[in-house]
Amino acid sequence: MYKARIRVTLRKSILDPQGKAVEHALHNLNYGSVAQVRVGKYVELSIDEPDEASADKVAREACERLIANPVMEDFEIELEKQSESEVAQS
Amino acid sequence: MYKARIRVTLRKSILDPQGKAVEHALHNLNYGSVAQVRVGKYVELSIDEPDEASADKVAREACERLIANPVMEDFEIELEKQSESEVAQS
Repeated sequence: MYKARIRVTLRKSILDPQGKAVEHALHNLNYGSVAQVRVGKYVELSIDEPDEASADKVAREACERLIANPVMEDFEIELEKQSESEVAQS
Repeated sequence: MYKARIRVTLRKSILDPQGKAVEHALHNLNYGSVAQVRVGKYVELSIDEPDEASADKVAREACERLIANPVMEDFEIELEKQSESEVAQS
């Protein structure tokens, strides 16, 4: 069992109005030192595959086919092996 | 200059319909090994503060006051010092 943590971000060249809105709001709250705010998605999922290579394949295909928009977004996957006790807890 | 990477997740006890929708869609695409999908937000920002403690304070307050909903969401902050060359690139 693997835990995948996926960060989906808009590509650098794509304008991010939500990030701009957060940035302006933070400036209005007097956090003037904040800049370059970008807002993306964060997805966590458990993958029940026997080895890391197949878990990574599932996570990557899930991103390419469903979670991320390949035209506008990039994604990064972090995989972590979960012990049985962690699985039972969650 | 610091780069903050913020992951905002719904608390465990809160139902996540978006995560459930992604999970069902992945099952329909024949990724049956995927479970426990949770969808959150990912925010990246640059913080121009002289030291890590003040950058962390700004990031934490930004989350508490604006980015996260303290009733329903948890957040995690990763801070990383940026060199001048990285700042110039971005």
